[in-house]
Amino acid sequence: MNIQPLSNRVVLKPLDEEKMTQSGIVLPDRDEKPTTGEVVAVGPGKKGDDGTVIPMEVQVGQKVLFKKYGFDEVEVEGEKYLIGDEGDIVAVLDK
Amino acid sequence: MNIQPLSNRVVLKPLDEEKMTQSGIVLPDRDEKPTTGEVVAVGPGKKGDDGTVIPMEVQVGQKVLFKKYGFDEVEVEGEKYLIGDEGDIVAVLDK
Amino acid sequence: MNIQPLSNRVVLKPLDEEKMTQSGIVLPDRDEKPTTGEVVAVGPGKKGDDGTVIPMEVQVGQKVLFKKYGFDEVEVEGEKYLIGDEGDIVAVLDK
Amino acid sequence: MNIQPLSNRVVLKPLDEEKMTQSGIVLPDRDEKPTTGEVVAVGPGKKGDDGTVIPMEVQVGQKVLFKKYGFDEVEVEGEKYLIGDEGDIVAVLDK
Amino acid sequence: MNIQPLSNRVVLKPLDEEKMTQSGIVLPDRDEKPTTGEVVAVGPGKKGDDGTVIPMEVQVGQKVLFKKYGFDEVEVEGEKYLIGDEGDIVAVLDK
Amino acid sequence: MNIQPLSNRVVLKPLDEEKMTQSGIVLPDRDEKPTTGEVVAVGPGKKGDDGTVIPMEVQVGQKVLFKKYGFDEVEVEGEKYLIGDEGDIVAVLDK
Amino acid sequence: MNIQPLSNRVVLKPLDEEKMTQSGIVLPDRDEKPTTGEVVAVGPGKKGDDGTVIPMEVQVGQKVLFKKYGFDEVEVEGEKYLIGDEGDIVAVLDK
Repeated sequence: MNIQPLSNRVVLKPLDEEKMTQSGIVLPDRDEKPTTGEVVAVGPGKKGDDGTVIPMEVQVGQKVLFKKYGFDEVEVEGEKYLIGDEGDIVAVLDK
Repeated sequence: MNIQPLSNRVVLKPLDEEKMTQSGIVLPDRDEKPTTGEVVAVGPGKKGDDGTVIPMEVQVGQKVLFKKYGFDEVEVEGEKYLIGDEGDIVAVLDK
Repeated sequence: MNIQPLSNRVVLKPLDEEKMTQSGIVLPDRDEKPTTGEVVAVGPGKKGDDGTVIPMEVQVGQKVLFKKYGFDEVEVEGEKYLIGDEGDIVAVLDK
Repeated sequence: MNIQPLSNRVVLKPLDEEKMTQSGIVLPDRDEKPTTGEVVAVGPGKKGDDGTVIPMEVQVGQKVLFKKYGFDEVEVEGEKYLIGDEGDIVAVLDK
Repeated sequence: MNIQPLSNRVVLKPLDEEKMTQSGIVLPDRDEKPTTGEVVAVGPGKKGDDGTVIPMEVQVGQKVLFKKYGFDEVEVEGEKYLIGDEGDIVAVLDK
Repeated sequence: MNIQPLSNRVVLKPLDEEKMTQSGIVLPDRDEKPTTGEVVAVGPGKKGDDGTVIPMEVQVGQKVLFKKYGFDEVEVEGEKYLIGDEGDIVAVLDK
Repeated sequence: MNIQPLSNRVVLKPLDEEKMTQSGIVLPDRDEKPTTGEVVAVGPGKKGDDGTVIPMEVQVGQKVLFKKYGFDEVEVEGEKYLIGDEGDIVAVLDK
């Protein structure tokens, strides 16, 4: 993966929603609702007003629920990714 | 429960409003009004500007009054849940 | 009373405005204007950015002037209550 | 006076504008412009983010210029008062 | 002068713009543009979140350029004054 | 120059854009785009919430790129100047 | 390069999108989506409320993904550049 996010940004690979449904998680269609993705790259953390870096909560490899409207699409080597703030990720999906 | 909320987010199971009414609490219909739910998962707490984690007030198992518009729906293993910020929970209902 | 407010929230019982009028306080009709209530439950206080809890100013049993639009209605055991932020209470009415 | 304001709120008795005019201060009609009042009750001061109380600048008995739109009307024992934030008082009128 | 401004407020006497033009400073007509005035009274300074008073930059007697829309008119003993925040004063005019 | 800016304000002399073009810098027409000017006066710096003065980055004599909409026009001794916040200056043009 | 950005601003040279596509990164057309550029100049960093300079994350020579709407165009010696905040750069593209 050759995209290194800055600040508190995260790169996600959107998950195949049908697969997710089989695994027991169903998600509504509407854009404002959380959808699922896998974390593929994580920024170093946002800097506070005094320059302190606030550590990230998510890790590469985790499956997450995120708010789609906060993410932008990029395409790297033929694969679609999403990039956005960690603040728009609402939960980690434990297996 | 396999959803681990991030930051100050909380996962709620909406309560059967009819049951609640029998127990003595009646709630208005309108969406902006508080409704009732049971806490099923709690995030680690929001990080302040200096990275300090602010502890959560609610605990798993508590029945709460919350503002519905601040919560998003997810469906896990056939059951509906709501996910949102602790700041949109207004009170704990003691039994 | 089985509602325990969170953060800086307060539960009020709206006061009989006619009674209030007899006691010498008259309040305008308009919704944006302060109205009167009795404090029946008080939250622990809001947490600042560093997690410090800021103590509440009002106490259970006090009669208060509050801004109605900042409060939501709930009904507990057949009685109507209002729940909202302490910041929307403007004054304590001393007897 | 039986209204004790909370936080940085102040209770004012609106001054007879004709009297003020005789004393040499004339004020425009428009609602957004400052008008005159006498301070009859003062809150303890607003709490900062760390809980520190910030002392009030005005005192009971002072005549003040204030922005009317920031104040709400209440009527106590047949007399009209105004209640609002100290931040909407722009000046003290020295005699 | 019997108006004592609060916080970071300043009382100005608007300057005769024709005089100013003769002295070499011409100012556009539009309301949003800076205009000239003389400082006649200065507040003690705004209080920060921890109660610290932030000292004022302007002094009584200085001629200043200010943004008119941020100021309210008052009339004291037949003379028009303007009252507003120091933050809407953009520069001191040195002689 | 007899204008002493307050806080983080800066007085600029707009540069002859044709001259700039000859020197190799061409700028778009639209008002929201940066344009060029020379710094003729610099304020002492903005005060933070605790009263600390934050030093200015620009110096008198520097040529700068700035966002025109953030600046107000004044005319001193027949010459047009612009006054605005340092935050609306985006870059220094080195020679 | 004779443009020295102030604060947390960065000067970028937009990258030839066709070239980028050949290298495996495809980007959507819409203006709000991230696009690619090379960092040609970097400001000293933004100053926090207490004057502390917060160090920049990007370096001259890095290829970056950035949000185009946050950047303004300038033309230096016949070449087009973009200037904007580091906060609108979302990721570094590693080679």
